Amino acid sequence: MRWLKILCLATGALMLAATLAGGLWAGSRIAFYELQDNVVHLAEKQRYLEDISKRQLPAAPPNIVFILFDDLGYGDLGYTGSRAIATPTIDKLARDGVVLTQFYSPSAICSPARAGYLTGRLAPRAGIPYVVFPEGSFYDSLLKLAGISNRLPAEEITLADVLQAAGYTTGMVGKWHLGDHSPSLPNDMGFQHYFGALYSNDMQPFALYRNRDIEIPAPADQTMLNQWYGAEARRFIAEHSGAPFFLYLAHNFPHIPLFRPVADEGRSRGGLYGDVVEGLDDMVAGIVATLKSQGVYENSLILITSDNGPWFQGSPGPHRGRKADVFEGGMRVPMLAHWPARLPAATTLDGLAMGTDWFPTILDWLQLPLPSDRLIDGNSLRGMLARGEDSPNEYLYFFSSSELAAVRDARYKYHERAPIAYPQSGSVLSFGFSKGPWLFDFATDFNESYDVSALQPGVAERMGAALQRKREEMRDNPRGWVSSASAPER
Amino acid sequence: MRWLKILCLATGALMLAATLAGGLWAGSRIAFYELQDNVVHLAEKQRYLEDISKRQLPAAPPNIVFILFDDLGYGDLGYTGSRAIATPTIDKLARDGVVLTQFYSPSAICSPARAGYLTGRLAPRAGIPYVVFPEGSFYDSLLKLAGISNRLPAEEITLADVLQAAGYTTGMVGKWHLGDHSPSLPNDMGFQHYFGALYSNDMQPFALYRNRDIEIPAPADQTMLNQWYGAEARRFIAEHSGAPFFLYLAHNFPHIPLFRPVADEGRSRGGLYGDVVEGLDDMVAGIVATLKSQGVYENSLILITSDNGPWFQGSPGPHRGRKADVFEGGMRVPMLAHWPARLPAATTLDGLAMGTDWFPTILDWLQLPLPSDRLIDGNSLRGMLARGEDSPNEYLYFFSSSELAAVRDARYKYHERAPIAYPQSGSVLSFGFSKGPWLFDFATDFNESYDVSALQPGVAERMGAALQRKREEMRDNPRGWVSSASAPER
Repeated sequence: MRWLKILCLATGALMLAATLAGGLWAGSRIAFYELQDNVVHLAEKQRYLEDISKRQLPAAPPNIVFILFDDLGYGDLGYTGSRAIATPTIDKLARDGVVLTQFYSPSAICSPARAGYLTGRLAPRAGIPYVVFPEGSFYDSLLKLAGISNRLPAEEITLADVLQAAGYTTGMVGKWHLGDHSPSLPNDMGFQHYFGALYSNDMQPFALYRNRDIEIPAPADQTMLNQWYGAEARRFIAEHSGAPFFLYLAHNFPHIPLFRPVADEGRSRGGLYGDVVEGLDDMVAGIVATLKSQGVYENSLILITSDNGPWFQGSPGPHRGRKADVFEGGMRVPMLAHWPARLPAATTLDGLAMGTDWFPTILDWLQLPLPSDRLIDGNSLRGMLARGEDSPNEYLYFFSSSELAAVRDARYKYHERAPIAYPQSGSVLSFGFSKGPWLFDFATDFNESYDVSALQPGVAERMGAALQRKREEMRDNPRGWVSSASAPER
Repeated sequence: MRWLKILCLATGALMLAATLAGGLWAGSRIAFYELQDNVVHLAEKQRYLEDISKRQLPAAPPNIVFILFDDLGYGDLGYTGSRAIATPTIDKLARDGVVLTQFYSPSAICSPARAGYLTGRLAPRAGIPYVVFPEGSFYDSLLKLAGISNRLPAEEITLADVLQAAGYTTGMVGKWHLGDHSPSLPNDMGFQHYFGALYSNDMQPFALYRNRDIEIPAPADQTMLNQWYGAEARRFIAEHSGAPFFLYLAHNFPHIPLFRPVADEGRSRGGLYGDVVEGLDDMVAGIVATLKSQGVYENSLILITSDNGPWFQGSPGPHRGRKADVFEGGMRVPMLAHWPARLPAATTLDGLAMGTDWFPTILDWLQLPLPSDRLIDGNSLRGMLARGEDSPNEYLYFFSSSELAAVRDARYKYHERAPIAYPQSGSVLSFGFSKGPWLFDFATDFNESYDVSALQPGVAERMGAALQRKREEMRDNPRGWVSSASAPER
């Protein structure tokens, strides 16, 4: 088999050479893509935020603590079934709050998922369907040659923008990954306070920023990361608990490479990965303790979830696929909402929900209008969470980067093309393609194993049509602009 | 992303060109590999079989019906948890027999798995660690350039060889996939009667053979396949039930492409795949009925299993990975043994077992000696099956084609290198490598999610050493020959 291995290596070298040659050739003729922000909707954004700032919030607006883990799998927590990792604090929040069992990240990869959570819009709408690489890096150049932006467009409206305009103090701790230069830095996009890393912890240089300046130069000691993030989150809460605040804590872990302090070594039964996740639970415990000591625990909405499924390690639970897949394992993530003042305890809901729903849900709770110049893809979960109403989502759409790949409803999931079944051990002889479309029925098939499109042709047709409608809508108006004359702009 | 797609396509074209150019270049200088059978051990085989033929079988030797499905996943049967597929006959056999929950195919791919089941030897030992392609096909030429054989060496001893020598009538129905020309055809390797396809049902030309001749020319109508195989199996039993018989029924399904008769369309809740598997259950029902009507049901050992995990469709149960992976999903398969006369009913065992164990187990039951000129990798499960004794296997070894990739014991599994985590949706941006080694602890981790090698360094060291010992043993004596002077030959 040495012969085949040499062939593969040679092909890899050829691929690299072709990439570089193509890049040089294209670079000599084509300018590297640089995102131009949309001035019309930048102005609309300003108008909208000014309008928000003039509105009166309802009585007792909640504090919001949104905790987003990175590459945490569906099965990696105590309350989602882990036997290797103990997460007592998160488990208690789950018991005392609402757990969503069919909740999806807006994307199966980092940057697009974050864009979806923060804007309420699907990643292609928010202008950032691909992973962001550090400005000037090789991959960044490659993506720019392909016309792909490396930052969230300035005209996008984040939850932080809205909450800041509404009078909240807004702070972010952790991984941004939506652009490492203005006008797309956290402080440009609604956060008054920022401490963290501008991208993933496997990207270089890994420095930690205090607002726009480096506070801890690269390479930052990642054994300290959890402690630094936790301390920063607690300090933010302690300093701002006198008035409504929004804390977005986007941890870099358990994305690889993983580190934990010496004291945590071997604490879990899940190895380094488990130790790190148990450390994350400790960090949550510190935040809970601070909320309590500040007297704001009852009226704080705590949300805990992940940006996508697990990568090399980590458990997707019983689901098929992992990070970057539109299979469940890539996008179905743990989700709990805890808010003693307003949400029921000990409640498990199986209504369909996606990370894009939080933006409209929170605005709904605060009686704030949505922007009128753009489509928001999410729907308010208020009635579902508070009163167990049906999900507002008839369909959820699954994008593989910029491509709409699958759609699901309460029972079925339709993959337009059958996904590639790569063997994970990388055997050369046994990878191939299947055709699709595939229709999976969750009533009988928890891990997307049996295509029932011929058995349920009506369902397949309906869901294929829903996917096609969404695709056409996205093609006609990719960014979802709604002009005053209702004519979509490109 | 169009740009990257074009790049990928261009790279694919380059790869193909490089492959062809390399093949032509190599072909002009290197002869295509043709397997030379080992005359020494061919003679030893004849001597061994002659010795077997002189021995007296114990009283009431059982009939043996070994049913091997192709690409059937761990979760695809009723008794292994399927909610989409009804397999009442197989479920009843499971209830009335012994179920092994930690049973592994000898390989994660077709041909090597079959070699392991039939010879009791790991696939590299049996000289066939790769998939066999039809003689003269493009892939066959490519593999021959790499020095890879496309047939089971004639000196290998199959279970059929032994049983025929011992006085059994031996018959095979279905997929051979261990060579499509002599001296490696079913009729060369111990089967007196053969009806079936010489390789997978996605390989061309797909004809069905009666012994050495084509009976149904290509393309054989695969909607009839289950019916043909079932009828042939029943006929074989009916014709030979007066004396001990061995029937090896290696079905081509549910390997793709899938077909079923019109009457079966929509019968399952698992789509085409489910319909096909339910048809397989019917075929088993026909065999059970024939065994009963012939009065040999009580003293027939029925074994039902699969050659590897599921490919594009099909369920690996809750396990990680699929066909071609050394993860559990690629190799842990359903296994039931049913023999009213000698095995307990309603028994579920979690002792480690592998397909290589059946050869020594059956010889043990028949009080026949193992060959003395070669190592047999499997161990007799007789005590475990009949009396619930501990598994005879301290370690099981997992090969990825010719490479030893992982080892497991009763609790742990050690992957020497961390497997590649391909995303199954094929996103370009998100595939990569991890380093390993990885140690997984099944006591807390059912789907190989958490490397505990640093937590359990002693275990990792022990299992790494076991893997290394096996690797060295295989390197020093790949085919496991034992000469009369005990000096290994190459």
